[in-house]
This record gives sequence, structure tokens and C-alpha cells, in this order.
Amino acid sequence: MPHAQLDYARRRDTLRALLPDHDPSLDALLVTNLDNVRYLSGFTGSNAGLLITADPAGDAIATDGRYLTQVAEQSGDLRAVIERDVAAALLAEVPGIVGFEATAMSYADHARLAAQGARLAPTTRLVERLREVKDEGEIELLRTACAISDRALAALIEEGAIRPGATESQVARRLENLMYDFGAEAVAFETIVAAGANSAIPHHRPTGAVLAAGDFVKIDFGARYAGYHADETRTFVLGEPADWQREIYDLVRAAQAAGREALVPGTDVREIDGAARSVIEAAGYGEQFLHGLGHGVGVEIHEAPTLGKLGSGTLSDGAVVTVEPGVYLPGRGGVRIEDTLVVRGDGPELLTRTTKDLIAL
Amino acid sequence: MPHAQLDYARRRDTLRALLPDHDPSLDALLVTNLDNVRYLSGFTGSNAGLLITADPAGDAIATDGRYLTQVAEQSGDLRAVIERDVAAALLAEVPGIVGFEATAMSYADHARLAAQGARLAPTTRLVERLREVKDEGEIELLRTACAISDRALAALIEEGAIRPGATESQVARRLENLMYDFGAEAVAFETIVAAGANSAIPHHRPTGAVLAAGDFVKIDFGARYAGYHADETRTFVLGEPADWQREIYDLVRAAQAAGREALVPGTDVREIDGAARSVIEAAGYGEQFLHGLGHGVGVEIHEAPTLGKLGSGTLSDGAVVTVEPGVYLPGRGGVRIEDTLVVRGDGPELLTRTTKDLIAL
Repeated sequence: MPHAQLDYARRRDTLRALLPDHDPSLDALLVTNLDNVRYLSGFTGSNAGLLITADPAGDAIATDGRYLTQVAEQSGDLRAVIERDVAAALLAEVPGIVGFEATAMSYADHARLAAQGARLAPTTRLVERLREVKDEGEIELLRTACAISDRALAALIEEGAIRPGATESQVARRLENLMYDFGAEAVAFETIVAAGANSAIPHHRPTGAVLAAGDFVKIDFGARYAGYHADETRTFVLGEPADWQREIYDLVRAAQAAGREALVPGTDVREIDGAARSVIEAAGYGEQFLHGLGHGVGVEIHEAPTLGKLGSGTLSDGAVVTVEPGVYLPGRGGVRIEDTLVVRGDGPELLTRTTKDLIAL
Repeated sequence: MPHAQLDYARRRDTLRALLPDHDPSLDALLVTNLDNVRYLSGFTGSNAGLLITADPAGDAIATDGRYLTQVAEQSGDLRAVIERDVAAALLAEVPGIVGFEATAMSYADHARLAAQGARLAPTTRLVERLREVKDEGEIELLRTACAISDRALAALIEEGAIRPGATESQVARRLENLMYDFGAEAVAFETIVAAGANSAIPHHRPTGAVLAAGDFVKIDFGARYAGYHADETRTFVLGEPADWQREIYDLVRAAQAAGREALVPGTDVREIDGAARSVIEAAGYGEQFLHGLGHGVGVEIHEAPTLGKLGSGTLSDGAVVTVEPGVYLPGRGGVRIEDTLVVRGDGPELLTRTTKDLIAL
């Protein structure tokens, strides 16, 4: 992906341009959150730091000897510093005040570096805010990750793997294998397959529980492609749906549609949550919708913005978010329907395209 | 596992007894490292904190509403506090000075809690040091994790999956599926399958690279079972080994044996590294052994102790560690041989039991 190579330098320049406004006293920024390092450099090693200085020529990436070859391949446009203690090595290059990522650096690391004489100033969410708006190169990777997920789910249904007698674990593993078959580099997160009463547990881990006729089967899954994550949930029913199943399925589907329609750039994120939640509350199931409506997705499976009561700010044009309301009836079963979408001025672009009609298997 | 239920309370009591010696000013300890929370309570949720007070009746676990049922099931012997901000909720219970885990808490979280009036004192590695010595219940789980790994590798060999024409990714996925078949709850880490020149990269990620006759194939893998991790590496050769392949294989095998023999309780961890490293250095390949000899393994895949130049202290009776020397010849290929073993007074117990003879496939 040659375009991605170019993007890293542009992203660093965008960040560099923000620094004086954020805190004019900063001479440089030390990035130690590994997802942020990857976003700004392409480097995927497990030990890394990145230094952003006023002059691009001062930028450097640090990692240890295990990654000597890899850092040259992935981040050849950056000067590489090979040291195990990446933060200390990069800080030693700057005599002035260096901003650091206060949510990524531990209290202990900060205390150690300060004791070594580093002049450190906390920053929060600088890179995370940049990451919130995706460029078209990133959206293309997310589109691919979602398309792989859709294809895998279609194949799973087609081959009849979601059937009475199968276990949750078997269905989850088969779906994960299909994602690999269709080009996933990894699964985006541990696949959730929750059948029957387990479907009422929002974050159930698959077990040896056997799928049975009459069950809701809730599947929350996604592929990772070139570092980007898909996130999708569909809920099926085994056999003819009961009335209560149709009722909550239709309710969640209507709430999910309302949430998607509320994805307008500039809207307060709590309003978007409210648009879906009010549909569920009006039907008397407000207490059974236990979580927020959605979240940003990109190089992390959960990132900014938060679409929920605990979120703040407004939705950005170019954000990629999930919309995933649910209704959970303890001991009986639950429904969640989730899409990943790109927020755009002319209406959201749906990346996860599996039907949201209730499928009886 | 009823015995595990009992162990959690015992572990908390052991930790409680250490606190006055560590820092007599502490009125309580706040545990926020999630692996440590699990070790001390059995709780596996993704948002949790644990409070340890002088009186066991003051102990509490905090998590958010998503885990209401789960916390009751997994940690029913502990008082549960249901709040999203777990640290703030637990700190509010203690008027005095509370120790916190300085490597697990971010600079930002510490600053926020201190601003709210919490009286915090940093601690380091208190629980990690406890975790270094495994009890027999833990060793049994590690034994099972390693046995699953061995069985999966045996089946992989038996079915001929490691063959010219297969890709690294195919071999890795098949091995991971076999681990699930034999009872793994997850893979302990992303499986490494590195063929030919890729085997010279210590931490290579599997690609579409095709295995070819004459290749070394290095496989580093492990199963996770009930939260405990196996870690094992074997290196194979496809076809008749060349002289250089036999030479470095035999060398690494001899170094690995020397490392295992040095696993005597009370030995300085750097000496154990040296025991294996000196064998490789004597043969002139010291520069090609790029990493430490091994590490502890348990509820994390990498934990204390570090067997390497950067480690410190002595080996404990009951520690579970890896011994994994390697020799890597860039552009040609590399060999690593790794076992997981229990350190015992009467000699180490080998948990990964696949042969270390050179297997030509």
C-alpha cells in the first residue's frame, strides 16, 4: 500500500501543526501509545516510541534490537533509534520540554523519567482526536475488513453451521476460520456467539453450550485487515420465531435504524445515543438496553468517539462508528444489531452490509 | 475447580500479610492490574479493581454493570461494588493512605484520583512477586496447557501439515485449530510459524510465504487453559538437513539443555542465562543469540522472573519459566528450542514434552 506510506508523514505533519496551539511551551511530543505510534509511522513492533519535533528532521522512532529489520521496512522514512528503553532514549535528544501521553504512560515510568532529569508535560488525546477522522485510505481498509466479515458470515449461514446441536464455540471457531479464508490478518476481537439464555448476556464468551431450536443466536464478530477492525453483530433465531422474539427483534431493528439516521456530522454524541434509546424506552424496554449505542472503530476496536451517555462532543464528518443497540431479557434471550458506518455529510456509508431482516435458520 | 475458589482468599491473605512490611503507612492496597485482579479474585472482566484492607472484611471488588452476574459467579466471596470508575469507588471507602500499582496506573488516572482527594502511595511488583511462585493448583493448569500444546503439535506433524507447498499462515491456523480441538480456551499468543530465511527473524508473524524443501520451520506456540499459558518452540527441517543446519540445531539444543540444567532454586537469573549463552558463545555464535534466555509464565505469557542480562534476583522454587535460546543467521535461517518448566528443588519438571531431536519432515 504505497499510499499508506505517504500518509504517515502527512499525519505527523498534522500533529506537528497542532502542538503550538495545544501547549506553546512544548518543544516536542513523545508518543508511547503503540496504536498511536503505528498510526503515525506504520511500525507494528511491541516496543516503540515516537518523537515529534518542531522540525520534521528531528522526528525519530525508537525500538529495540529485535525489530532492527522491521523498523527499517515499515518506517524507513524515519530515523530509528535502537534502545530498549525507548522513552529515555528519545527524551535524551531534546533539551527542552517534551509533551507525553498521560493516559499511555504509567505513573512509574513517568516518575523514573522525571528522576532522570526529563522535563515532561502531560498531554491527553492529541493523537486520538486526529484518529477520530479517517482519511479515504483508512476507510478503504475498514471497508475491506467489513466486507471480509460479511462474506464470512454469509458462508457460515450458507453452509448451515448455525444449527441446533452445534456448540457456541464450534460456531465461533468456524466463523473465525472463514474470516481468515477470506483474507483477514486476524480476528478483530474474540468472537461472541451466544445462544438461548446466553444471548441475554451482552458480552458472553462462547462455551460448549449447545444451540437448540427456539434459541436466539447472537453473533458479534469482525475481521482485522491491515491493522483496521470491523465490528458487526447479527442475531438469528433457530426455527420459527416466537412472538416475544419478533417483538424485541423488530424493536431493536427500529432503534438501530433511528441511531443510523442520527449519524449527522455536528450532532452531539449523546443525542445520537438518545435517538436509538428513546425508541427502546418508548416500548418499555429502556432498562434492558444496558450499554451505550456505539463507539469509534479504526486501529483500535474501541476508540473515539463514544456514542453514549458518557460521551461528549459532536460527531465528526469522516468518523467511523458502530451503532449497536440491544435488548436483553435475563434468562430468556437478547437481541443486538450492530453495523460499522462512515459518517458523511450526505448520509452515513454502511460498511457492514449483511441484511438486518430477521433470519430464521 | 473448587480448589481455585479457596486459593483466591489464601492469596489475598498472603498479600495482606506482606503490606505492613512493605510500607507500614499503608491502610489498604488498590489493585488495578487486571491480571493481578484475576489472580487474587478469579474475576475475568475487562474493567475491575480490587481493594485489600488490613481486615479481610474490608476487601472489595469493583466492576461495572455489564459484569453484575459474572462478578457474583466468579468472585462471590468478595463484596462487589458496581461503579464504572472502579478506582475512585474503592478509594472512597478508605479514609487513609492507599497503595496503588505504579506500573499499572497511568499518570493521568493518578493525577485525576489525587485531585479528587485520594491519598495514594506508589507500590511496585507486590502481586507480581507473589505470582512468581506457583501453587500446585496453578501448576496443574499449566501442565494441562502444555499437554494440549504438545498434543496439537503431534497431530500437526502426524497429519503432514508441515510440508513444502503449505504457507506459514496455513500451518499456524491449523495448529491453532488443533489446540482448540484438544481443549484450549484460547491461544496463548499469536502463533509464530517462520520458514526458510524467515526463521532467522526471532518474532516473525506468519505470512503467505510458502514452505520449501531445505527450509528450517520454526514454530513458537502455546495453548491457554483456565487463564494459564503454555509457551513452546520447536524447529523442524524439511527434507535432509544440511551440515550448517545440523550444526546450529545441535548447538542450540546443547545450549538449551545447559539452560535447563541451570534451573536450580536460588541461582542468580543472569547465571542461568549465562549457562546457555556461554555454550553458544564458545561456538562463535554469541552475536546471533539476540534475546534473553527465558521468562516466567503463568496468568501472563511473559511475567517474572526474567532469565537474561536484564534480569535480577534469584530463581525461586516453584517458579515456572521458559528456556529458549536461539541462533539466527540472517538471510539463511534460525533455530530456537523452547520449553516451559517448573523449577523444583529436585530438578526442573518439564511441562512441554515434545522431543527435541531434530525432526526432518
